[in-house]
Amino acid sequence: MNDAVYKIIELTGTSAISSDDAVRNALARAAKTVRQMRWFEVVETRGAIEEGKIAQWQVTVRIGFRLEE
Amino acid sequence: MNDAVYKIIELTGTSAISSDDAVRNALARAAKTVRQMRWFEVVETRGAIEEGKIAQWQVTVRIGFRLEE
Amino acid sequence: MNDAVYKIIELTGTSAISSDDAVRNALARAAKTVRQMRWFEVVETRGAIEEGKIAQWQVTVRIGFRLEE
Amino acid sequence: MNDAVYKIIELTGTSAISSDDAVRNALARAAKTVRQMRWFEVVETRGAIEEGKIAQWQVTVRIGFRLEE
Amino acid sequence: MNDAVYKIIELTGTSAISSDDAVRNALARAAKTVRQMRWFEVVETRGAIEEGKIAQWQVTVRIGFRLEE
Amino acid sequence: MNDAVYKIIELTGTSAISSDDAVRNALARAAKTVRQMRWFEVVETRGAIEEGKIAQWQVTVRIGFRLEE
Amino acid sequence: MNDAVYKIIELTGTSAISSDDAVRNALARAAKTVRQMRWFEVVETRGAIEEGKIAQWQVTVRIGFRLEE
Amino acid sequence: MNDAVYKIIELTGTSAISSDDAVRNALARAAKTVRQMRWFEVVETRGAIEEGKIAQWQVTVRIGFRLEE
Amino acid sequence: MNDAVYKIIELTGTSAISSDDAVRNALARAAKTVRQMRWFEVVETRGAIEEGKIAQWQVTVRIGFRLEE
Amino acid sequence: MNDAVYKIIELTGTSAISSDDAVRNALARAAKTVRQMRWFEVVETRGAIEEGKIAQWQVTVRIGFRLEE
Amino acid sequence: MNDAVYKIIELTGTSAISSDDAVRNALARAAKTVRQMRWFEVVETRGAIEEGKIAQWQVTVRIGFRLEE
Amino acid sequence: MNDAVYKIIELTGTSAISSDDAVRNALARAAKTVRQMRWFEVVETRGAIEEGKIAQWQVTVRIGFRLEE
Repeated sequence: MNDAVYKIIELTGTSAISSDDAVRNALARAAKTVRQMRWFEVVETRGAIEEGKIAQWQVTVRIGFRLEE
Repeated sequence: MNDAVYKIIELTGTSAISSDDAVRNALARAAKTVRQMRWFEVVETRGAIEEGKIAQWQVTVRIGFRLEE
Repeated sequence: MNDAVYKIIELTGTSAISSDDAVRNALARAAKTVRQMRWFEVVETRGAIEEGKIAQWQVTVRIGFRLEE
Repeated sequence: MNDAVYKIIELTGTSAISSDDAVRNALARAAKTVRQMRWFEVVETRGAIEEGKIAQWQVTVRIGFRLEE
Repeated sequence: MNDAVYKIIELTGTSAISSDDAVRNALARAAKTVRQMRWFEVVETRGAIEEGKIAQWQVTVRIGFRLEE
Repeated sequence: MNDAVYKIIELTGTSAISSDDAVRNALARAAKTVRQMRWFEVVETRGAIEEGKIAQWQVTVRIGFRLEE
Repeated sequence: MNDAVYKIIELTGTSAISSDDAVRNALARAAKTVRQMRWFEVVETRGAIEEGKIAQWQVTVRIGFRLEE
Repeated sequence: MNDAVYKIIELTGTSAISSDDAVRNALARAAKTVRQMRWFEVVETRGAIEEGKIAQWQVTVRIGFRLEE
Repeated sequence: MNDAVYKIIELTGTSAISSDDAVRNALARAAKTVRQMRWFEVVETRGAIEEGKIAQWQVTVRIGFRLEE
Repeated sequence: MNDAVYKIIELTGTSAISSDDAVRNALARAAKTVRQMRWFEVVETRGAIEEGKIAQWQVTVRIGFRLEE
Repeated sequence: MNDAVYKIIELTGTSAISSDDAVRNALARAAKTVRQMRWFEVVETRGAIEEGKIAQWQVTVRIGFRLEE
Repeated sequence: MNDAVYKIIELTGTSAISSDDAVRNALARAAKTVRQMRWFEVVETRGAIEEGKIAQWQVTVRIGFRLEE
């Protein structure tokens, strides 16, 4: 079996700053334990509201990484 | 009935600046009449184009707020 | 037939900077060959990862423009 | 906050005549209490059957209207 | 078991006249063999084109009818 | 306009007991301010976890009620 | 052709008691005329409301059964 | 390669008269530049509202036509 | 009523060989009792695994056939 | 990176008793190896049928838990 | 604008042989007029039935190709 | 807790040969580290194109396996 196989995991990143930043935080955390990450897809954008304002962006991403043989 | 119940409303915020800003504008408007907002979900991201450029981001959000008993 | 008819095309814009910027890049490219663009919808937000970081945002948009009679 | 914000409500209009007429009836009812309606989207088309024939078209529409500031 | 149970069947009705008429034709055909039909839902609207014009509307409906005990 | 028109609202009911009970709680709360409710649809079933157990069922329902003319 | 083939039918069971009971009622009715049922999937959970309370759970299930050769 | 290949394009037709008419207008416009159209599918039905009434039906259709070899 | 009406049934075919073969098996079984089948759509591709290998492809198809008048 | 990141895993719990119980069983098993679980979402409700009755509820849940930094 | 932009087109390939072959036929036809194709996604698998057998696989693919600057 | 619980993982298998082969490659890789795999579902079929031809099928599968107690 010479063809690459990828695993997809799903993380929810959070950020007080922006939706893009929540994605970056999810990837930064994943990079601590996963190698060879190749792509991501945003599957949900939500957030928490406090006192009428966005307290936290919560963005769920699917991340694909190559499995070692 | 002691368990909290939440209502979900749907607003489309607009902004000339960014998609995140359109979400913030929707929440700011909702905060004028709704209390105890807790979460939001982005359900659609669209926009208007003028002279080949984005004239307006239009982002639809669902907003959940706690109903008073 | 006096009623306007619109065509919808689908482009994937890319950007190293942000998801919104990828949308702007898609529209800027479309504007080179298409006239009378009126609206867009974001249908997919993905990206490429290199060395644990976002190397490229890839955002797919549907763009509606008016057909000339 | 100068950018327009829209609220979306959902109604099911009914009609013994046609699916389009059920939409018109939903809008006519909404117009009694809502101002500045701008767009609608059809999200479901159902109906009741009596004696093997359509007794009532039931069409659910989402209606967007501009909120006053 | 005293509670009613309904069966759902799916038909595609066709018509040269209109989308609503295709629904009516599907129900008329079902009424020949099925009794106690109660509701329908439109799940797909397609059609055949000949010489640049609609030759046939093809509308798929789900029809619910009560099963006899 | 003699044909009935219905409005659909969306509530999230909660319960420590069961998913069905969360639906009942949502309806009980709605019944305090809304009359002529006719049907509901469950659109999402979620929950909160505390110490490895379900602390709260959170069930989102769409509720249809008849608008008075 | 030695490989098993299954047919899928769709029923809506009802119950005044619970959503699970509506599923059981649908299966009990199906068992009167269908043999070799193997699996089911819940595809929709709705209900009727009377006087502000759930009068009837209406749960639609897809049921798979093996066809005899 | 002897097997037929079809291209699918997406248009939004508009009409002040009816949803079916908006489909017809989209096809009529397509027929000016595309040959060998074979089928269409309705994918979205929306509209613009003015003074509480439908000002314009906006129906998006996917149109399949045979590519010449 | 001169316009054709079609019924859609749903079968799951199985095969140890390939996903396409599972479709063929479903159609072969349907052909024993249904006449005038015209089209199919693949709606789900699953399978059973034994000892780390595909033991059985399970492909669900919707099959449309013309009803006799 | 101070913002919390959550991982989502997907389990199918089973139960002979009820759909809610299948969810509880999935969470109970997850709690053996996962800490800081916060929420779940039901994504599929299926079951096995034996002798015309529900032999096993099979409910698939997505479970979110906080990743330690 | 230095970032690549891709256009997505949608084709339905056909084949009497297999579903994979229908994809290959769609790409072969596209290659006659489009350059720099990079990826495809299968979005629908259907087919025509004649005399109880598959007469033609019809597979719809979305194809992404890089636009020249 | 005597009822079986299953975990679902998601892999993307690749193959230069066929879509079915990409599924087999994903399962073969999973079998190196996961025991008691029971079922899979195909959730996405994509591919890479080089010089106008399919260079690689990329098929994403969800795989369910039984967790040991």
